Amino acid sequence: MENREIIIDLLGSDMGPEEMLEGARMVLEAFPQINVALSGPRALIEAARLPENRYRILEADKTVTNLDNPIEAFYRKEPVSVFLALEEAGRCDDVLGVISAGNTGALFAGAIRFLLADKTARPCIAAILPTTQGGFTCLVDTGASIDCGAAQLVEFAHRGSDFMRTLYKIESPRVGLLSNGAEPTKGNKLVKEAHALLEKEEGINFVGNIEGNKTLSGQCDVLVCEGFAGNQVLKNSEGMAVNLITEIVKYGKMHNVPAAKEIVGYLMSRFDFASLGAGIMLGTSKLVLKNRGSCRREAVRNAAQILVNLAENKTLYESFN
Amino acid sequence: MENREIIIDLLGSDMGPEEMLEGARMVLEAFPQINVALSGPRALIEAARLPENRYRILEADKTVTNLDNPIEAFYRKEPVSVFLALEEAGRCDDVLGVISAGNTGALFAGAIRFLLADKTARPCIAAILPTTQGGFTCLVDTGASIDCGAAQLVEFAHRGSDFMRTLYKIESPRVGLLSNGAEPTKGNKLVKEAHALLEKEEGINFVGNIEGNKTLSGQCDVLVCEGFAGNQVLKNSEGMAVNLITEIVKYGKMHNVPAAKEIVGYLMSRFDFASLGAGIMLGTSKLVLKNRGSCRREAVRNAAQILVNLAENKTLYESFN
Repeated sequence: MENREIIIDLLGSDMGPEEMLEGARMVLEAFPQINVALSGPRALIEAARLPENRYRILEADKTVTNLDNPIEAFYRKEPVSVFLALEEAGRCDDVLGVISAGNTGALFAGAIRFLLADKTARPCIAAILPTTQGGFTCLVDTGASIDCGAAQLVEFAHRGSDFMRTLYKIESPRVGLLSNGAEPTKGNKLVKEAHALLEKEEGINFVGNIEGNKTLSGQCDVLVCEGFAGNQVLKNSEGMAVNLITEIVKYGKMHNVPAAKEIVGYLMSRFDFASLGAGIMLGTSKLVLKNRGSCRREAVRNAAQILVNLAENKTLYESFN
Repeated sequence: MENREIIIDLLGSDMGPEEMLEGARMVLEAFPQINVALSGPRALIEAARLPENRYRILEADKTVTNLDNPIEAFYRKEPVSVFLALEEAGRCDDVLGVISAGNTGALFAGAIRFLLADKTARPCIAAILPTTQGGFTCLVDTGASIDCGAAQLVEFAHRGSDFMRTLYKIESPRVGLLSNGAEPTKGNKLVKEAHALLEKEEGINFVGNIEGNKTLSGQCDVLVCEGFAGNQVLKNSEGMAVNLITEIVKYGKMHNVPAAKEIVGYLMSRFDFASLGAGIMLGTSKLVLKNRGSCRREAVRNAAQILVNLAENKTLYESFN
């Protein structure tokens, strides 16, 4: 792997472009073989004094906020940082992928426009969650495809299976379907339809319904769900981890328990969604990683690590197309 | 409050009728003013040697399992424990409510048949979740009303508001709507529709969308959602609490950290969904509490505590009808 480039969209993050820039600096330090292309305001990027010859600038002063309509943003005259990043990724062969912490809708719309050959397919965003067994489960979709149909859930099952087969070398990934009960009769209309389709789908190792309290149990390698429900699982898991960790910190201070700090450190290493959790867009010609809007600089480096891991596996792009 | 009775359905729990019977024993010990009616196998109940004159038997050897169709179960010849319990509640004036850990669908169908005057309304099951602020949020619906429409979400908002007004004396309960983003433009089709309705609904103090990582943040007193999504939030919160607590126990043993036990005890007291989390059916003429299938005996006593608390407030049944 030589002279490969990662494109980083600096705008749209809740923490501001400075934090994303520091993330870019960490990427350059961690991966000497990788350069970056930075999409954002020129003056800001130049002031950061990153190592010369290791970065280039895709100049854009504006992005799409959560209050904008992403489709309308296509018709703006000024360049939009997230679209510029995605367009450049589609144009250049040596780009490993795009990292953004901006608006999901814009990222999604841009990916469809610039990185999808088959416009009838819909990309989806997966999250790789740590299981209590020490492994990982690919949760798909996590909020990109809202109000989708049963056929799309089957598509997600294939994409998630391809991903886990390629990245984690699992020969026949077990696919579970998120439901409100383990029995095949449980579910809303969509889930019942998808259940029937998945049972007879070739190339899918379907293991049945998974309940909300078993999402991190390691009972499946791919957990399929519609985007609204998947968004709840992802954010709720994150929220609960934060809640419990906050309680431990409080308790440790109040009752003077020094071991509380040690335990918090351990839990953070196991369940730190804020630095762990980049969403991975599946179904595009180049990889797109969506960091949480509130992500810290470490999350940018971690996302780059995922891109590098994936790039080192030659078969990956094939299975993605 | 004199000579009041709580009806306990002994069958359908994952832990077996013996655990429910021990729960009934705890209820009798904790509330000398309350008697119980036990729906289940006569021989088993008699063998438990509960205090004489404090219990009566509603004899039933069968219930509805998760694999049965609840509606078909209405047409069985032999008595079905959950239906017997609900029918008796509808018939007797001095019943505080029904406690069951059996199949939710059956409980729901039975409640509609025996405890609902207006058959066009749908009951819903709420959960009272502990917030990080030390208060409580009423999550409604948690899995009883799957695939419901926007008008029903507005109904849930009213029922939840009535409940929090009555039980927790909150004058104008803040109602949030579960969504995949805080902005009013975020949501699936159902949530967007419900958002528009809630904004103009009289008697509802609507505070907007709540994201999945803020469900326990205390930003609202009532959190409204469709049953499938609510079930994910409830079970996922529970699952994450169990996951983190299990990790702390493991870590404490592996690294010999005695304080781990103390911290686990504290977290269990704050987030122990297994003993805390009875679902409360709203919209019925008598209160129906749904314990988790896996609930322990303490959960039965806690459910009885809720019924007693509610019974002591004279206005409650009015607001429920």
